[in-house]
Amino acid sequence: MLGGHLLHGGDYNPEQWLDCPEVLEEDIRLMKEAGVNCVTLGVFSWAVLEPEEGVYDFEWLEEIIDNLGKAGIQVILATPSGAMPHWLTQKYPEVMQVRADGQRNLPGKRHNFCYTSPVMREKVRAIDEALSKRFGRKENVILWHISNELGGNFSDGACHCEHCQEAFRRWLQEKYGTLEELNHAWWGRFWSHVYTDWEQIHSPAPHGETTVTGLEIDWRRFVTEQMSDFCGMERRAVKKYSGLPATTNFMSFFKNLDYHRLQKELDIISWDSYPFWHRIKDEVPEAVWAAANHSVMRSMKRAPFLLMESVPSAVNWREYNPLKRPGMHMLSSMQAVAHGSDSVLYFQWRKGRGAYEKFHGAVLDHRNGGNTRTFRDVSEVGERLPLLAKKAAGTVNRPKAAILFDWENWWAVEDTTGPRLDLDYVQCVLSHYRAFWEAGIEADFINMDAELDGYKLVSAPLNYMYRAGYAEKVRSFVENGGTFVTTYFSGEVNETDLCFLGRHPLEDVLGIGTEEIDAPGEEFANRFLYCGKEYPAARMCAIVHAKEGVSVLASYEEDFYRGCPVVTENAYGKGQAYFLAAESDQDFYRAFYGDLFQKTGLENPLRTELPYGVTAAERTDEDGKGLVFVMNFRNEPVKVEGTGRRTEAETGKVFEGEIELGAFECVVLDV
Amino acid sequence: MLGGHLLHGGDYNPEQWLDCPEVLEEDIRLMKEAGVNCVTLGVFSWAVLEPEEGVYDFEWLEEIIDNLGKAGIQVILATPSGAMPHWLTQKYPEVMQVRADGQRNLPGKRHNFCYTSPVMREKVRAIDEALSKRFGRKENVILWHISNELGGNFSDGACHCEHCQEAFRRWLQEKYGTLEELNHAWWGRFWSHVYTDWEQIHSPAPHGETTVTGLEIDWRRFVTEQMSDFCGMERRAVKKYSGLPATTNFMSFFKNLDYHRLQKELDIISWDSYPFWHRIKDEVPEAVWAAANHSVMRSMKRAPFLLMESVPSAVNWREYNPLKRPGMHMLSSMQAVAHGSDSVLYFQWRKGRGAYEKFHGAVLDHRNGGNTRTFRDVSEVGERLPLLAKKAAGTVNRPKAAILFDWENWWAVEDTTGPRLDLDYVQCVLSHYRAFWEAGIEADFINMDAELDGYKLVSAPLNYMYRAGYAEKVRSFVENGGTFVTTYFSGEVNETDLCFLGRHPLEDVLGIGTEEIDAPGEEFANRFLYCGKEYPAARMCAIVHAKEGVSVLASYEEDFYRGCPVVTENAYGKGQAYFLAAESDQDFYRAFYGDLFQKTGLENPLRTELPYGVTAAERTDEDGKGLVFVMNFRNEPVKVEGTGRRTEAETGKVFEGEIELGAFECVVLDV
Amino acid sequence: MLGGHLLHGGDYNPEQWLDCPEVLEEDIRLMKEAGVNCVTLGVFSWAVLEPEEGVYDFEWLEEIIDNLGKAGIQVILATPSGAMPHWLTQKYPEVMQVRADGQRNLPGKRHNFCYTSPVMREKVRAIDEALSKRFGRKENVILWHISNELGGNFSDGACHCEHCQEAFRRWLQEKYGTLEELNHAWWGRFWSHVYTDWEQIHSPAPHGETTVTGLEIDWRRFVTEQMSDFCGMERRAVKKYSGLPATTNFMSFFKNLDYHRLQKELDIISWDSYPFWHRIKDEVPEAVWAAANHSVMRSMKRAPFLLMESVPSAVNWREYNPLKRPGMHMLSSMQAVAHGSDSVLYFQWRKGRGAYEKFHGAVLDHRNGGNTRTFRDVSEVGERLPLLAKKAAGTVNRPKAAILFDWENWWAVEDTTGPRLDLDYVQCVLSHYRAFWEAGIEADFINMDAELDGYKLVSAPLNYMYRAGYAEKVRSFVENGGTFVTTYFSGEVNETDLCFLGRHPLEDVLGIGTEEIDAPGEEFANRFLYCGKEYPAARMCAIVHAKEGVSVLASYEEDFYRGCPVVTENAYGKGQAYFLAAESDQDFYRAFYGDLFQKTGLENPLRTELPYGVTAAERTDEDGKGLVFVMNFRNEPVKVEGTGRRTEAETGKVFEGEIELGAFECVVLDV
Repeated sequence: MLGGHLLHGGDYNPEQWLDCPEVLEEDIRLMKEAGVNCVTLGVFSWAVLEPEEGVYDFEWLEEIIDNLGKAGIQVILATPSGAMPHWLTQKYPEVMQVRADGQRNLPGKRHNFCYTSPVMREKVRAIDEALSKRFGRKENVILWHISNELGGNFSDGACHCEHCQEAFRRWLQEKYGTLEELNHAWWGRFWSHVYTDWEQIHSPAPHGETTVTGLEIDWRRFVTEQMSDFCGMERRAVKKYSGLPATTNFMSFFKNLDYHRLQKELDIISWDSYPFWHRIKDEVPEAVWAAANHSVMRSMKRAPFLLMESVPSAVNWREYNPLKRPGMHMLSSMQAVAHGSDSVLYFQWRKGRGAYEKFHGAVLDHRNGGNTRTFRDVSEVGERLPLLAKKAAGTVNRPKAAILFDWENWWAVEDTTGPRLDLDYVQCVLSHYRAFWEAGIEADFINMDAELDGYKLVSAPLNYMYRAGYAEKVRSFVENGGTFVTTYFSGEVNETDLCFLGRHPLEDVLGIGTEEIDAPGEEFANRFLYCGKEYPAARMCAIVHAKEGVSVLASYEEDFYRGCPVVTENAYGKGQAYFLAAESDQDFYRAFYGDLFQKTGLENPLRTELPYGVTAAERTDEDGKGLVFVMNFRNEPVKVEGTGRRTEAETGKVFEGEIELGAFECVVLDV
Repeated sequence: MLGGHLLHGGDYNPEQWLDCPEVLEEDIRLMKEAGVNCVTLGVFSWAVLEPEEGVYDFEWLEEIIDNLGKAGIQVILATPSGAMPHWLTQKYPEVMQVRADGQRNLPGKRHNFCYTSPVMREKVRAIDEALSKRFGRKENVILWHISNELGGNFSDGACHCEHCQEAFRRWLQEKYGTLEELNHAWWGRFWSHVYTDWEQIHSPAPHGETTVTGLEIDWRRFVTEQMSDFCGMERRAVKKYSGLPATTNFMSFFKNLDYHRLQKELDIISWDSYPFWHRIKDEVPEAVWAAANHSVMRSMKRAPFLLMESVPSAVNWREYNPLKRPGMHMLSSMQAVAHGSDSVLYFQWRKGRGAYEKFHGAVLDHRNGGNTRTFRDVSEVGERLPLLAKKAAGTVNRPKAAILFDWENWWAVEDTTGPRLDLDYVQCVLSHYRAFWEAGIEADFINMDAELDGYKLVSAPLNYMYRAGYAEKVRSFVENGGTFVTTYFSGEVNETDLCFLGRHPLEDVLGIGTEEIDAPGEEFANRFLYCGKEYPAARMCAIVHAKEGVSVLASYEEDFYRGCPVVTENAYGKGQAYFLAAESDQDFYRAFYGDLFQKTGLENPLRTELPYGVTAAERTDEDGKGLVFVMNFRNEPVKVEGTGRRTEAETGKVFEGEIELGAFECVVLDV
Repeated sequence: MLGGHLLHGGDYNPEQWLDCPEVLEEDIRLMKEAGVNCVTLGVFSWAVLEPEEGVYDFEWLEEIIDNLGKAGIQVILATPSGAMPHWLTQKYPEVMQVRADGQRNLPGKRHNFCYTSPVMREKVRAIDEALSKRFGRKENVILWHISNELGGNFSDGACHCEHCQEAFRRWLQEKYGTLEELNHAWWGRFWSHVYTDWEQIHSPAPHGETTVTGLEIDWRRFVTEQMSDFCGMERRAVKKYSGLPATTNFMSFFKNLDYHRLQKELDIISWDSYPFWHRIKDEVPEAVWAAANHSVMRSMKRAPFLLMESVPSAVNWREYNPLKRPGMHMLSSMQAVAHGSDSVLYFQWRKGRGAYEKFHGAVLDHRNGGNTRTFRDVSEVGERLPLLAKKAAGTVNRPKAAILFDWENWWAVEDTTGPRLDLDYVQCVLSHYRAFWEAGIEADFINMDAELDGYKLVSAPLNYMYRAGYAEKVRSFVENGGTFVTTYFSGEVNETDLCFLGRHPLEDVLGIGTEEIDAPGEEFANRFLYCGKEYPAARMCAIVHAKEGVSVLASYEEDFYRGCPVVTENAYGKGQAYFLAAESDQDFYRAFYGDLFQKTGLENPLRTELPYGVTAAERTDEDGKGLVFVMNFRNEPVKVEGTGRRTEAETGKVFEGEIELGAFECVVLDV
């Protein structure tokens, strides 16, 4: 993507070591030894790049970039807005966020700037343009890295200052036109919440409004919009003198910002991946979590993305931080590439000496230079990536299945009161996705705005909100032969959280009539038989009836709704629609989707059954050429049988009918 | 009580549907179908009734009332102070509460008004009088509903603004006269907390005073007093042009307001009942909780009350919200009537489309009109109530036993440090009351100001505070033949939380001398034998000695206080006094009170032993005529034997010697 | 120490009872009965001593002191700054602390004064000098008690007001000279945290800086320094007209203030001891905790200290508060003396009638006068102490072993992110100390500034920070024959939390090279064999390699670091250094230190093995004469064998070869 090779390297903070030239020299020597071909500079360097207001000191940075260039190392150059220098917060306190409780932050930490503040925008624009002018055409600079982990300010990611309140009101005025419209959309007559003046509107707050769900969702939309606008401003600034593409580093399942909106300001998606490996001995849940995140990133542009940060040893911020076991570093790095990454980048190259992240894992520790297990692990990745780079060029995963994962649905379903308050949308989506992962079948993660054409199977669990036009799109998808799956507590509200009256918007497609929804306690858990095996129905149990002609594949076995359908199948047009009335367990999802894969003809790249802990992912170019990654997430060897004849991509070694994988091994095959 | 029939209906919010005339028409049609004879209007309608300051729009309301009247449906009309319109909070920020931490609320939510604010009082008074003038003599309007769930503002129920601080100081000045008196009452020389100027006094606050328990209790008293004063102002306003009675809806075990004081501003008690049915399979604890609350409400005026809110399906605000199982809606509705309610009213008639309560259970769902299980359940209640109304008229429960449940005691015993910090007064009272409930013997819940004459048995568990005159009253009650029970940690302090010196105020009556009180950890739990069976003595173990002539019915078996009394019985005058030195379990309370019922001649209305899960309650008129409600809270049939010949009230069916109850069934008999 | 006898008595608050002369008379009568020879006056008496600004009322106090004197009772006289009168906070709000969140406290509670405020200092100085003038030479006044539990304000012990911010900046300027120095020390280029103006520096705050660990540590140092300065000011004031020594009462393991610094302002150490006896049946953990605290206090000046507060029955502030079982009051009182206390003092003489501490245990209850178990327990101590006083005079414990317990290390290791966030320094130190306690071998608790000469064994668990000069001191200690023990996560950072680069500062002494550190989850716990027995290695597992010549006494048995050393022994100079790579359990520490005691020749005073629950402690004078305290913390009799011939100190009774101890008994022997 960026010069046709797979990037290897990571965050590099030489400004912390400018008075130690021997450290800087060792850095470049060891980068070459580790196969590093790209580093990210300047992420938190504002205080050094602009030591006083309007005075830029770029010399040291240029020297670093040049020295890297001489060593053949490319540079991703960051804008410095992720952390503000003290002269800025001292002179312009308005740049600091105001919390939901009305208190303005003090200086410190990072990520806590007001994205609406005109002063903040002006100061950032100025240094971004200066960076663009000075470095935007340098040969070994390849990408702009805008700010850092936008919205990651340790709380709700939002600023509630007066600038933001005014901007919110303007945004609402543009959206709704009149207060009458807004009051209807937010169901304002409930609890006398009728607005009669735009000035009466205030962001949600613990000591103010928390009960108008339409306001909550619109506030979240506004925060995303405002942050996207800030990001777009930075993008225009860095591109003023430069034709380089721009990215910003996303985070895992980050609820505060709708990445589908924010990504429109970016040329390339990138993200920071920190799975909790070795939390328990079964690594599958974490592997599924990481694969899902990779796939979310890839799906946004249906294109390769960058793994911008990952840790080669252990992080420093969890309650406890185990070391990566032998093999895991290579496996987790390959996993990223398998799902669409064109890079393996680390936070960080070298551990700092002090402050909050001094023990965050890095390629280089405080001691022992290149003579560490971590450095050797990193170097192995550095050796392997070039062997794959050529065959990976131009490839990406091209799934025939998709899972709906929509930010606005996430906000709405978790913010609403209702049958239960502890709904976890991400966990629900992951339990459905895991059935795909275990079968080695890749899925895209799409939101409600996505086109459905081209998919054979679309699953939309806990799809509480239906935005305008969505139901029609699903109907036509099924009509034209698609297979659609959805669950309990779906199709409940429109985009402002107003309940649909009369009927479920997809009643015809699903072939069911909804009646009630039970949220039984543990002693009242229900159960059902599916294909002769018993599974639990728990926590959320919708009571529905099947329309004529609908196949009821399973029914409740207990309680007053014994006999009501749990799994239904409805032929609609050329397609099929499935409804799951209750939450169940992983065994059920495995069985249910296994059947669906057969019915829809979805297969994994090895066309064989995969043992527990093993998955596969395929990247191909437009001609169908590419790579298959076979990954073993068990810490013991395992054999995959029935694979047919396969050739290892890097070595040409031929596997006849079966592939043996070592503990935590990833084998890469030609397609 | 209100026209001689049992009310059936509930909260109705037509202002949310004024633009949907077909909805309003369907409402009245289905109300008639469901046997609804009464609805509550206007609870949160301020923004619609007074869309801008001083401009009232009552037309729509009159039309609704008239349409209801034509359909034979009565109206309870609410004042709108429960939720403030935005124009009010915008123009007069002082109407919003200030929290204990000193922060003024933002607009939003509900119930968060300052009850001291002159502006708030003026605005409420004005609209209340206008409502009184317009609707106070309408034929089908029967009752004023003042505000809503007073004090229910999601935190401490109190406002800490400067208006309130000044009112608090004035209230203290009136109460104590001099600072010398106040300093003595609050034991001000402890930690140098001597006040030398009234202005130095401030409400308790997390960043201020939390250690002067006398201040804490007086602050709570003041909050109740101030809220009662506000309520009284509203009552006078609605009665300006109207002779209708007034109520406000109380909540379950609501600690923030002393309902014994607040009820003096009301003509009729009503409350909102939300038990957590089906949390576990054993419904008895929840049935006891609901029965206790009903009885608290009835006991305040020793008169029938109204069940103002209840849910016909599931609420939306608990962590999980199970549906009511078949039979439970009828049973829980009859339970209210059995304990003294003259109504079964719901929150709410129809689910709103949006915001915080859109999934709160209602008679009508967003879909399916009258074709739902809930609607059929409601209609069955609607059919049954009229069958009972005539025989219930003029009746009320008339128990011969009482349990002390006193708000000031609650505040004091849970706010004090001492043997343990996790004392739960309500749980303690409930564990004693449950012994009555299981035996089918009704009890009143009285506070320390109540007359004791007429009761055979008074139980006062965890009666930490003795207000002036109380000990004397108990002494004379026992002297005159009453049976009195009390426990560990009773009679410790006077009304300002000053410890009694020298002796326990009822030492003579109880016949014990107090020594020490142990709060053993789990490994040190003690035990005792009572009537040959072993029971635990745990958490609170008073060490006392029995005076001469006292019967020691049980003694500790373990530890250094082995042999000290746990249960004592003392004949005093014509009566008996019992002391329970330690906390024990339900088995013990069942056995102990079972013996007391025998000794005092207390019997249930069926004069037979009731199986587990079954209870009975009796309402009679002054001539002893009335109804007996026999309720089965088990989800399976059960037989009650030894009942003698009984006649079913609604059908005249005769039971000979035994009554069989279905799962969750309530049978009503003639007395 | 103070007149050659052991003090017995405690906090006395007669100002609460001035209007009850009969109470005051009873007090003195019962004090004599209980063997009380000393009481503490005036701790919270400011409001009574200075009822309005500048007007002192000392008459009542003088009368009390005189009456006590006539009864032969000495007085410890407190300064009243522990709780402020309301006239002070009303007129000068600046005396009240500002919290980290920026909010100024309201009046109330106690301990919440700003120690920087010039007004506060002036007001305190004035009354202290007045007290000094009036009482500083009274015959029966023997000691100044400055303020109360300094820093114990229920939160972080610190004030964040503008006075404090300015003082902090001045303190930093004096410490670092230039911002360049400060920025380097705090690693300011991390996250752009470079200070360019002293005014930019602010104390750590939840809404501000929490990520600059160097700032955090310096802020804690400043708080200690400022509080010490305040304490020094009070000391000078009370000494203005008085030659009496001064103390203040310390608290158990009080993290907010570095007592090694604060104690420099004091002549005598004293502390308030509140172990949680009878929490579980095994009293050993609590006995170890108390012994450790006593030893911390004694070690600060290597001199006798005072037990200033302890409770003769039960406290009132824990979740539950068990009574002291028979024997425990004597045993815990003797324990204090055994570890170096020259007093047994109580909080409090008499329970107050009201407010927060009315149920806090006291010698006298609200009832029953001297006729209580507690009073008899206290009187027994009052009889015993004089029997020991003469032999105890001039004695103190003189251990040959020391455990490092350093406040700055505590702050740094618990504030840093790293392998795990739940490190508990105190628990770690206690688990090492417990091995000493179980063996009956006393240890000093020293900080990094202490001299090591004279100790045979020094153990420094979790010694994360090495201040300048410390490594050199340890090296020379071992070189000269000392035995040194340290653990995983030691020697990581310097005094401003900057990581050491290159090597562990004691790599040569320990003979190990550090590689990585694992923080395994529970499923990944490791294990090792030591002397043929298996022990767990969990939570923190350092991976190191042993240098040539080092003895590896145990190695990991599991995981990828199987075979790496867990316990190493290195001969260095004339001494030995031990490294423990992993956290283990008490069984291991018992075995490991047991071996070390043999190797180093450390023995308990009885020169025999002690049964579980029994320990011994020895106090001797410079000639080696003194007392041995043998204490049984089991609630059952136990026999200690192999003791040789011993004489009981108080009775002259001779034990031949064995000593039998009753439940919770302490036997005192001559040395």
